[in-house]
Amino acid sequence: MSNTAGQVIKCKAAVAWEAGKPLVIEEVEVAPPQANEVRVKILFTSLCRTDVCFWEAKGQTPLFPRIFGHEAGGIVESVGEGVTELKPGDHVLPLFTGECGECRHCLGATLNVAKPKKGQSVAVFGMGAVGLAAAEGARMAGASRIIGVDLHSSRFEEAKKFGVTEFVNPKDHDKPVQEVIAEMTDGGVDRAVECTGSIQAMISAFECVHDGWGVAVLVGVPSKDDLFKTHPINLLNERTLKGTFFGNYKPRSDIPDVVEKYMNKELELDKFITHSLSFSEINKAFDYMLHAKAIRCIMTMGA
Amino acid sequence: MSNTAGQVIKCKAAVAWEAGKPLVIEEVEVAPPQANEVRVKILFTSLCRTDVCFWEAKGQTPLFPRIFGHEAGGIVESVGEGVTELKPGDHVLPLFTGECGECRHCLGATLNVAKPKKGQSVAVFGMGAVGLAAAEGARMAGASRIIGVDLHSSRFEEAKKFGVTEFVNPKDHDKPVQEVIAEMTDGGVDRAVECTGSIQAMISAFECVHDGWGVAVLVGVPSKDDLFKTHPINLLNERTLKGTFFGNYKPRSDIPDVVEKYMNKELELDKFITHSLSFSEINKAFDYMLHAKAIRCIMTMGA
Repeated sequence: MSNTAGQVIKCKAAVAWEAGKPLVIEEVEVAPPQANEVRVKILFTSLCRTDVCFWEAKGQTPLFPRIFGHEAGGIVESVGEGVTELKPGDHVLPLFTGECGECRHCLGATLNVAKPKKGQSVAVFGMGAVGLAAAEGARMAGASRIIGVDLHSSRFEEAKKFGVTEFVNPKDHDKPVQEVIAEMTDGGVDRAVECTGSIQAMISAFECVHDGWGVAVLVGVPSKDDLFKTHPINLLNERTLKGTFFGNYKPRSDIPDVVEKYMNKELELDKFITHSLSFSEINKAFDYMLHAKAIRCIMTMGA
Repeated sequence: MSNTAGQVIKCKAAVAWEAGKPLVIEEVEVAPPQANEVRVKILFTSLCRTDVCFWEAKGQTPLFPRIFGHEAGGIVESVGEGVTELKPGDHVLPLFTGECGECRHCLGATLNVAKPKKGQSVAVFGMGAVGLAAAEGARMAGASRIIGVDLHSSRFEEAKKFGVTEFVNPKDHDKPVQEVIAEMTDGGVDRAVECTGSIQAMISAFECVHDGWGVAVLVGVPSKDDLFKTHPINLLNERTLKGTFFGNYKPRSDIPDVVEKYMNKELELDKFITHSLSFSEINKAFDYMLHAKAIRCIMTMGA
């Protein structure tokens, strides 16, 4: 591979030229990696709901043309000046957050933010891949009840595989979903995890945890103009609200361990992959995500 | 004392008849204690800022006539049916929250919500008695910097006795106080404690903690129509927001220990008492609190 090191190379990319319009597969030029950069040959890629949000650009600053692809797997093709921990041929996953290992952020302990205690109840807002992963985590931690909340009832059957025990579709109720959950759980759940990015779901997730000890964790990415609003008495009643970015995982420290566990079959992740497509079918993948038909589509770059 | 048990008795009380108007000391009748109630002969009383808020009735539902007095000390005069854990003659402190010892609230562990780690920085909003107690707690925990925030610069000298190392008066700055604090602390404090009940201070307290690990704790009582608003990205950046009621102390389990420590001189609490008055001077006590002249006034009932 190193015969291309230091050269501008030509690659195939699915370019988003306009909000909500089909991506166009075309040839783009990729510059050689600059200092502290690496160039990666992507072998497989996928879409996350965040890609769809930024492509739709509703509530996000429109930024086009744009090439998506933050969920992927590949091989280092060449490295820029000063890169010492990666070399051509290394298998890597691109991630949207970094870890220098030296600053106060990186030195802090990794937290498992929302981990429930055995026997506790958990509400998960959003039954997409992130929400299902949260449910799976709650199941592994021994949660007694895992209440899945989603506007698409079609997702509920699939969600059972991830430990979800009960379902609430806010559209089926006349009252706010936090009230429905409070009634189901004698005052509220012990933990709630918000995985949609909808501001209304964030507020509901916070308000559906039990006063005195409930913890709500926000994971979903909000729109840029959103405001989180609640009466402060909801906090004074000893609820906790916290957010997490990438699940508080330190990417370089923590992800290799996740990969290792998957390779050793200690983690069952295949059920997240509901569709496989070739890269040329990327617009079909957007359609699946947009209509909540897929959890994850894997696209093979060569195909 | 038991010669009055079961009887209606006549007592002196300072009655608030109207919002913001001087209290009137008059004779009131007190019914004998009903089932699960006790009647307490108050020996000393004090005012807390919450009394002043409910007396001013700005942002609170006006409720008059009213007799204040939730900070006090006294002796049980008689007990109602079913009371087994108190008897006439016991020394007691009336409190605004209960503890049955059996429900899920009471069985939860007592938390020291905002306790900083040694060497961490803490911002405390409000230099009244509650804020100064928070500062004192931070000092005892080994905080390296304790930044006091208050609209009354006159409070800052006194605050040094409680461990406050730096002061910020929001009125002295053109920008939001959270930005001032972020600049002073290279991105934000490790912990913030809000002790005023002002919604703006609550938002500032949350936004002045460092992303990645900062924790803000709300203690002050909000007005009934307040809304806590923040951009959810402030949460996603791994800040935590929590509230506490009575500092998460379980009153019957935890307060006797505080009293014990005070009696053994392990806790230095006398510095909270800046004024002593007789009960007949209660309107002067309101005035002191209203103009931030006193931390606490103790009023002696007999005098």
